[in-house]
Amino acid sequence: MGLADLDPQQLEALAARTTAAYAELQDRKLSLDLTRGKPSAAQLDLSDELLVLPGAGQSRAADGTDVRNYGGQHGLREIREIFAELLRVPVEQLLAGDNSSLSLMHDCVSWAVLHGVPGVDEPWFGRGVKFLCPVPGYDRHFSICAHLGIEMIPVPLGEHGPDVAQVAELVAADPAIKGIWVVPTYANPTGAVYDEATTRALLEMPAAPDFRVMWDNAYALHHLTETEHEPLDVLRLAEEAGNPDRVLVFASTSKISYAGAGVSFLGASPANLAWYLDHAGKRSIGPDKVNHLRHARWFGDAEGVRAVMRRHRALLEPKFAIVRSVLQQRLGELGIASWTEPEGGYFVSLDVPEGTAARVVQLAKAAGIALTPAGASFPYGRDPRDANIRIAPSFPAEAELTEAMEGLATCVVLAALEQQGAVSV
Amino acid sequence: MGLADLDPQQLEALAARTTAAYAELQDRKLSLDLTRGKPSAAQLDLSDELLVLPGAGQSRAADGTDVRNYGGQHGLREIREIFAELLRVPVEQLLAGDNSSLSLMHDCVSWAVLHGVPGVDEPWFGRGVKFLCPVPGYDRHFSICAHLGIEMIPVPLGEHGPDVAQVAELVAADPAIKGIWVVPTYANPTGAVYDEATTRALLEMPAAPDFRVMWDNAYALHHLTETEHEPLDVLRLAEEAGNPDRVLVFASTSKISYAGAGVSFLGASPANLAWYLDHAGKRSIGPDKVNHLRHARWFGDAEGVRAVMRRHRALLEPKFAIVRSVLQQRLGELGIASWTEPEGGYFVSLDVPEGTAARVVQLAKAAGIALTPAGASFPYGRDPRDANIRIAPSFPAEAELTEAMEGLATCVVLAALEQQGAVSV
Repeated sequence: MGLADLDPQQLEALAARTTAAYAELQDRKLSLDLTRGKPSAAQLDLSDELLVLPGAGQSRAADGTDVRNYGGQHGLREIREIFAELLRVPVEQLLAGDNSSLSLMHDCVSWAVLHGVPGVDEPWFGRGVKFLCPVPGYDRHFSICAHLGIEMIPVPLGEHGPDVAQVAELVAADPAIKGIWVVPTYANPTGAVYDEATTRALLEMPAAPDFRVMWDNAYALHHLTETEHEPLDVLRLAEEAGNPDRVLVFASTSKISYAGAGVSFLGASPANLAWYLDHAGKRSIGPDKVNHLRHARWFGDAEGVRAVMRRHRALLEPKFAIVRSVLQQRLGELGIASWTEPEGGYFVSLDVPEGTAARVVQLAKAAGIALTPAGASFPYGRDPRDANIRIAPSFPAEAELTEAMEGLATCVVLAALEQQGAVSV
Repeated sequence: MGLADLDPQQLEALAARTTAAYAELQDRKLSLDLTRGKPSAAQLDLSDELLVLPGAGQSRAADGTDVRNYGGQHGLREIREIFAELLRVPVEQLLAGDNSSLSLMHDCVSWAVLHGVPGVDEPWFGRGVKFLCPVPGYDRHFSICAHLGIEMIPVPLGEHGPDVAQVAELVAADPAIKGIWVVPTYANPTGAVYDEATTRALLEMPAAPDFRVMWDNAYALHHLTETEHEPLDVLRLAEEAGNPDRVLVFASTSKISYAGAGVSFLGASPANLAWYLDHAGKRSIGPDKVNHLRHARWFGDAEGVRAVMRRHRALLEPKFAIVRSVLQQRLGELGIASWTEPEGGYFVSLDVPEGTAARVVQLAKAAGIALTPAGASFPYGRDPRDANIRIAPSFPAEAELTEAMEGLATCVVLAALEQQGAVSV
């Protein structure tokens, strides 16, 4: 029985219960945080061998490279080999970088702005460049665009990617559109998984030669169920589409080993790699190869990474179950919210009644529960429906998460009742 | 007795000896490298505790921060405290970054190009910005400018910095001059040490509000003699000059711990730091704090760093002595060359007869001795006198270095004789 079906008496009873629950929540002076997709300490502990690796006297790579010294802009081959298999990128087309794939994305976009990209040897600077942004999406992608003056055009994200007919139409109509942000596997925050048909369409559609698909495969290996979606070998698909330079592949071990001290990866066509290396060579004399060796020794091989990921799943699955269960129990029957049930990744995307998301976040904050700002998953922080809230359940302990989710549910109901005029706080 | 003083018979004898020596050199099929200022394996071994640090279970900083997770854009306080003392930068004004101070410099210049800097909120892009480049100087500084389309104006570097009257005059005459590259301590490649008077003059002279002194203190602690030049507290000097935002301080542990896996530092005024952090926050969720903790544990305190530097000196001093001794023995009497005798740093700057530097490098290469390309220490790789060669003695073992220096001396004499028409090869 939904909120809309309640008779005045039932509504009044619900309002009284909810107001009381919220007052009680405030009394508890909580300090809980559901804002960011941070691994928990237990997850980080899984890789604590890294704290003593590569190990005494271990400073040589398999090919004899002294990892302590300068050089090696491509990154160490042994770590590239492991992730080449996992990401389905040929090892020759995969670079290993420092601790942040966000940095690789930032640098690629900013070098495009400063210098242009292969295909069009002209900087994007001052040319009114635009990017398509499937929404809801990842706020840090949008920050890069906003910061570099790249106009963002939202397109709705479906279960298997955006509507490619719409994307193709937009791109055909406006050659200033030079890119699209894609989180192909377990998208942040909806959990969408791009399928091959959508991907091929994005790679085949007519577009400017300097149009780039920013393929941020941040959660490529981050399964939460038995259904393990395999990464698409998107560089081969791009080649087959006749547009080998269209896609840039990003990934990292931030949510495999350490969030702040992992290894990032860039996969690209030969022309894009040469372009990247030319610019990167002006910026540094090479990435941290000791950290590459450390990681290669810790993982051993691709199966070693998969084993770590199974242990992450064992820690994360119960948390996602808590989110699902509280939302179902508290909001399921009222029919005022919907949420995703992702098969991987780090987030649950919650849709509350239109026009109440910001209010829910505000109510939660006043009760000591920090949520990602409403609208954060949209360009410029503007959710036109004011309906979407991103939930990040990985960091808190299970008891805290339960408490935070119960509190959040109370806030959702309260905001919905306020909107209906059934309560005023 | 100099080359010019030789009578025809003596000249002929020298020519015969040198030609024979060069032929013998070629016969030895050497493969020696004096190109880059890379630490030797023995130097890197000094810090091999880093290969097992921070140590089992050591993932918390003094303030409780979990160094494995995201965050902490300033870098870990314990490593900043150590280098604040050594670099004479207040700890609140010092950030710790990833493994490359070149990256910090690159990012600062490229963010100035894209966004402008505090003082003038206008990007440098497309505005014909120029930098002053004391010469001879560091080729990678010049590469950043060349790559970003910043015009370079060479100014001669004296023993204590450039002629500041000339610098001030250039800057006053052309507001498009927005910066100057400075390696204040044991400059690459001459070993010059900027004195306080020169530094104060650079900080006091009238200049555009977005003019920046790129203070690359790469060799701040890299003494080769008992004379340990202390870094100037340049941020205080800039404040006293009424131009607190004029200078950006860079340093790293690349030549203290590991060249490829150290920690970089940025020191700056509050306005410049806020500017840097704003841009850096778009690029990543923080530097590698595990590496910061690893380094803090390894060094312990500032005295720990000084102790490592004394051991570096013990390894480097004999190599610089070899360079000096071979040059003195082989070229001293002929009066055809001059060279620096640095009190620190990584290089010796050799001046050969005008018009022969490129030929010397070519002759050496043909004999299996790799030298930095002639002109590399000048903007655009153009040494107008074709006289300067940079010698990097740190990497080769002593026997190899002796062999390479003997070979180089032969090439210098041969090129000088060729120029005089006394031999033709």
